[in-house]
Amino acid sequence: MMNFGFNDLSLVNPCELSDEAYMRAVHADKILDQAQIFPSFNDAINDIDFLVATSSKETLSEKKHNRNPVFLPDFTQQIQQVDGTIGLVFGREDTGLFNDEIASCDLMVKIPSHESYETLNLSHSVGIFLYSIYLDNTILPQKRTPLDNIEKNHLYNAFEELLAAISYPEHKYEKTRVMFKRLISRSIPSKWEYHTLMGVINTAAKRLKEK
Amino acid sequence: MMNFGFNDLSLVNPCELSDEAYMRAVHADKILDQAQIFPSFNDAINDIDFLVATSSKETLSEKKHNRNPVFLPDFTQQIQQVDGTIGLVFGREDTGLFNDEIASCDLMVKIPSHESYETLNLSHSVGIFLYSIYLDNTILPQKRTPLDNIEKNHLYNAFEELLAAISYPEHKYEKTRVMFKRLISRSIPSKWEYHTLMGVINTAAKRLKEK
Repeated sequence: MMNFGFNDLSLVNPCELSDEAYMRAVHADKILDQAQIFPSFNDAINDIDFLVATSSKETLSEKKHNRNPVFLPDFTQQIQQVDGTIGLVFGREDTGLFNDEIASCDLMVKIPSHESYETLNLSHSVGIFLYSIYLDNTILPQKRTPLDNIEKNHLYNAFEELLAAISYPEHKYEKTRVMFKRLISRSIPSKWEYHTLMGVINTAAKRLKEK
Repeated sequence: MMNFGFNDLSLVNPCELSDEAYMRAVHADKILDQAQIFPSFNDAINDIDFLVATSSKETLSEKKHNRNPVFLPDFTQQIQQVDGTIGLVFGREDTGLFNDEIASCDLMVKIPSHESYETLNLSHSVGIFLYSIYLDNTILPQKRTPLDNIEKNHLYNAFEELLAAISYPEHKYEKTRVMFKRLISRSIPSKWEYHTLMGVINTAAKRLKEK
């Protein structure tokens, strides 16, 4: 939960939160400390505006409405429109959620999974659910400042100098310059990758000319 | 792994695959049985065309190329262009991958995570990685056959009949019909949801008229 910025944990009739629970939580012990404990499912869902059951056990029949799921990627898109408290309900490790629990939720959502083994364990379901919501509601930091036009021209010109220095056939210059441009552009190089590469190419061209 | 259709597991210098390992694998015991064991990292990566290190420990400096990551959602898009064997390398539960192991990989990929706690445990990292690759390379089954135009018109007309049956102000018909249409359309109803809803609306309108 803490890996993806969630911290509001409610537990229904849980086992004891033993040393093992804290050991596994590692740095997320605060979430365990602040977890709310409820005696029953109905007590836990009182203050939630939009309640979402999670299950991999879907019914293939359209006639059985209760377990006709929305897939996780569609759900994470959809909840961007929801203002209010959303509750995600995860079932027991062994038996999941019961039909009446799923029926009392507004939606049932399923994590798409491979037909050879559809049921995820509880812990992985929670991880994948929260990752997906986090991802669809987060702007990822832009890792690389792309090169501007002056830098790009410097780089491609330096590469052409290198071609000249190795007596590359002149009629192939243009084609190979474009090859290099396409190759480099697919990577969207950072400024530092640019400077490092420029250093190598310029030095090589210079040394070759000195020969 | 099996949840997302992956089955080719290589283990480098692992601990014993004890009863606990099989207990946790549940129905995926076959993957453990077929796992290849290698004495060292270098032995394990021989037959792999494109090797991907996974780590949450990125360097913020663009100058340190080794741990400048690609984010998982970009990576899962990118590998759709790769033909060949792709190897995903996950590190130790406690210390992750070492710098030299990451350097020997073609790319480093990071799962986007919240700044309050960036490091995922090994098991969740693998789950989220494989889910993401599965999702971006799978066409999800179309769950609902949308209504055709005839069905849609029947439904909206039935709703208007209901408005008439409750003596709804006639000058508001059009506006409320459109409200109903928008409300229903946002859900993309299935044929069975349509038939069930039609049954309720038609019966209500009929009973009201009989009064």
